[in-house]
Amino acid sequence: MCRWAAYIGRPIYLEDVICRPGHSLVRQSHGAQRCHTAVNADGVGLAWYGDRPEPGQYRDVMPAWSDSNLRSLTATLKSHLFLAHVRASTGTATSRNNCHPFVVGKWSFMHNGQFGGYDSYRRHADALIPDDYYQHRKGATDSEALFLMALAEGLETDPAAAMSRATAKFETLARDRGTAPHVRLTAAFSDGQRLYALRYASDDHAPTLYHRWSDTRGGRAVVSEPLESDEEGWQEIPAQSFCVFQGDSLTVTPFNPAALRAAA
Amino acid sequence: MCRWAAYIGRPIYLEDVICRPGHSLVRQSHGAQRCHTAVNADGVGLAWYGDRPEPGQYRDVMPAWSDSNLRSLTATLKSHLFLAHVRASTGTATSRNNCHPFVVGKWSFMHNGQFGGYDSYRRHADALIPDDYYQHRKGATDSEALFLMALAEGLETDPAAAMSRATAKFETLARDRGTAPHVRLTAAFSDGQRLYALRYASDDHAPTLYHRWSDTRGGRAVVSEPLESDEEGWQEIPAQSFCVFQGDSLTVTPFNPAALRAAA
Amino acid sequence: MCRWAAYIGRPIYLEDVICRPGHSLVRQSHGAQRCHTAVNADGVGLAWYGDRPEPGQYRDVMPAWSDSNLRSLTATLKSHLFLAHVRASTGTATSRNNCHPFVVGKWSFMHNGQFGGYDSYRRHADALIPDDYYQHRKGATDSEALFLMALAEGLETDPAAAMSRATAKFETLARDRGTAPHVRLTAAFSDGQRLYALRYASDDHAPTLYHRWSDTRGGRAVVSEPLESDEEGWQEIPAQSFCVFQGDSLTVTPFNPAALRAAA
Amino acid sequence: MCRWAAYIGRPIYLEDVICRPGHSLVRQSHGAQRCHTAVNADGVGLAWYGDRPEPGQYRDVMPAWSDSNLRSLTATLKSHLFLAHVRASTGTATSRNNCHPFVVGKWSFMHNGQFGGYDSYRRHADALIPDDYYQHRKGATDSEALFLMALAEGLETDPAAAMSRATAKFETLARDRGTAPHVRLTAAFSDGQRLYALRYASDDHAPTLYHRWSDTRGGRAVVSEPLESDEEGWQEIPAQSFCVFQGDSLTVTPFNPAALRAAA
Repeated sequence: MCRWAAYIGRPIYLEDVICRPGHSLVRQSHGAQRCHTAVNADGVGLAWYGDRPEPGQYRDVMPAWSDSNLRSLTATLKSHLFLAHVRASTGTATSRNNCHPFVVGKWSFMHNGQFGGYDSYRRHADALIPDDYYQHRKGATDSEALFLMALAEGLETDPAAAMSRATAKFETLARDRGTAPHVRLTAAFSDGQRLYALRYASDDHAPTLYHRWSDTRGGRAVVSEPLESDEEGWQEIPAQSFCVFQGDSLTVTPFNPAALRAAA
Repeated sequence: MCRWAAYIGRPIYLEDVICRPGHSLVRQSHGAQRCHTAVNADGVGLAWYGDRPEPGQYRDVMPAWSDSNLRSLTATLKSHLFLAHVRASTGTATSRNNCHPFVVGKWSFMHNGQFGGYDSYRRHADALIPDDYYQHRKGATDSEALFLMALAEGLETDPAAAMSRATAKFETLARDRGTAPHVRLTAAFSDGQRLYALRYASDDHAPTLYHRWSDTRGGRAVVSEPLESDEEGWQEIPAQSFCVFQGDSLTVTPFNPAALRAAA
Repeated sequence: MCRWAAYIGRPIYLEDVICRPGHSLVRQSHGAQRCHTAVNADGVGLAWYGDRPEPGQYRDVMPAWSDSNLRSLTATLKSHLFLAHVRASTGTATSRNNCHPFVVGKWSFMHNGQFGGYDSYRRHADALIPDDYYQHRKGATDSEALFLMALAEGLETDPAAAMSRATAKFETLARDRGTAPHVRLTAAFSDGQRLYALRYASDDHAPTLYHRWSDTRGGRAVVSEPLESDEEGWQEIPAQSFCVFQGDSLTVTPFNPAALRAAA
Repeated sequence: MCRWAAYIGRPIYLEDVICRPGHSLVRQSHGAQRCHTAVNADGVGLAWYGDRPEPGQYRDVMPAWSDSNLRSLTATLKSHLFLAHVRASTGTATSRNNCHPFVVGKWSFMHNGQFGGYDSYRRHADALIPDDYYQHRKGATDSEALFLMALAEGLETDPAAAMSRATAKFETLARDRGTAPHVRLTAAFSDGQRLYALRYASDDHAPTLYHRWSDTRGGRAVVSEPLESDEEGWQEIPAQSFCVFQGDSLTVTPFNPAALRAAA
């Protein structure tokens, strides 16, 4: 399990989400409250959109709380749309290539969750990634494989359908070759225009996901855990949901990869 | 605060202290129970004695639990005398040079504790280290300064007196220029023949320190926290004590740097 | 291209091969003379055999010349059989998991060379690794894939035949989907009893490979480049050769994966 | 010796100086032509000015050519004023805290050169740094000490005089306790408004220093080595010079710390 935070709105310094709040993402890296792993210190990463279509990307293997580069970057960089992630490995090594967010072209992607027994079907997941996207396979995580599979399934043209098909393929592998829990996931991703997020589980234990619009900031945070413990306005996103954030609007639709599997 | 473990006795694999026990040092790196900081993930280090007078030294900035090198080294290396440390920074950076154990010649040294307001008198502490030892000043920690000062005070000829004088100098600086708590410390160090340890505080809150002889292993572990929670035989070392471990014997004498300060 | 050095014989300190000679492996990391890349600074690694069947493994991303851990480990560790490698990436990231030697069970493996256009057929190479070995796929290098494929082809029972089959499979992929030069490689690997090495190319430009027996040491070094520039006794291993080093003996046989491909 | 590059002018992507030119700073990290050390791979760093008075800072221990974060940051960040540095250690460890540029408040600073026998008078150099600045002493380099001493000497009010006094103090130490060559240095530093650079040696071998105004970019590069080998307009800055760059103007004055020493 990991913790992550994303933002879309008027440009703010990244530290306003990542470092400064009372229960900031950095705080969650050593004291998360709504997941099994309080410590999420197996690497940290950022993707932020600026002048160019491709986001900037920073990833490193140190715990977020001790990373001097992270501290300076978040105090210096302003962005209207960014993703940040602190990692708790479910088995793969602590290396930059296994840290989120992953970036391919203009797309960035980060993930939190669990595919039970992934190691036993990792080769089969990798084999589902077409050649064109396999060149972007740099690490060994389930998360990166899910991202590349979603790109191959058409993330560009229909993000919800692509993520649904990719998740369904993973769930089929998990049910055939893995162990329970088969799929528990939240993810956030972006093309630089919209911010997408989803919350899903094949059982009743989807990881937590919240969002909150701030009039002061003119922007919205989408997070694993609320950034302040006593702040009003944090709303939980229901399980089995797919969210599109654009400007100040939010569209939530059901996310149901199981239906695809049934139809297959 | 940090956590550490040392061993003297018949040669064992380092993992038998560092990785395998139920409350091993690696376990303490993310779940320490007898100090304020449950997470001790700002670096890890080993010093072990073998064929040569100088110990081997391994230090790195990753959390102990995710360091593949640490895992392999401790599963491969056998030693009759070794020190191991997981770090929780009290302010200085996470870098190899700030990780324990420190090594100068045949001496190795590691430390856990606190010098209140150290940053305000760091320059004065550094200035007390003679030229001959200042070349070994690689990082910025209070711990390394204490070690070099103890070497300069004659660690070679009278370890207890040298550590006492070095601690007294620190305590004087701390009382003159720092903040409470002035001194709280445990330390372990070795010349490859004997293992030394001390427990001291200028108030009533000395960090914890335990030891246990194992007949099975033919050796003794000296640790911040017992390596098994339900194991008999762990003995607490009283505060204001200096210990010499050699073979299966243990000599404990009072450690009273304040007396030196009074006499000064 | 990379540089490597291996040793089999009476136990010596690893530094006697890796750090001390005039043209030591560390020296070759910034001043190699017999390959296109004088600088081999994209990581460093060791595997050494001791009391246990599984070798110790140390890998890190720093240049060999500045790695304080490497310096201390090689000055402390003695071994009768070890492998060491300095890396010059041909494209994949500088991460521990992409550093050599790779270790699976009692086997260690390191590689130097080039598979032309590997990125375009990487997925197909990965797909040839059976599930049982794919769990050991941690990085993204061609080298690790070759090792795992050789294990799957029976490295345990017939090392020469297994390496030949694995190389033939790679060469087929390279000729079908890659670019020239298809295969240029040297490799060294061990099960802790024997040291194996091979030199091969699909064209006339196999990477260099030398060995030298030392009566003084009672051991043999097998290296990419001689460890002293003016020392007698360094012998070049011919291209298309497979070598078995055991005790003070050396057996060289032709290495001809192309024959397998023709027969297929 | 190290290599560095700085820029002042219309905002550009950092990669236009650091990565893209034919003899970019990254290229110089493995193939410098105008210094003794062709390889400058002991760490890399950036400081860039944006919206806030304090610059952003990024430093890491990997060679510049293999650092994925550096590549992404320089492709994403635009700045009107930035400093970049690739390091070749003259003895101190490869750690973030020993990497340039150093940053204190709004000031950034980087250095290339040599103080002969520095290790023998390092303690005396440290002792010259007042308490107020010593808290910023994080590493062990001569470079950081020179910067902090210059701050203490009044970098804020009279940069040329402050650098001159700091250099004179170092030169006195070097002549009293060090070895030849006593001082060889170039440095660049900034307060976010102006870019300062100096070139000086106590003998006839000052490190190289060049600058070039680009009408196309509307900015000026100040560098250890010209960024293109066949490009017109690169001008060498004479030894014993202090330069102030502001807008498109350049003021060069003599830099003569020896006069201070004579007067003392």
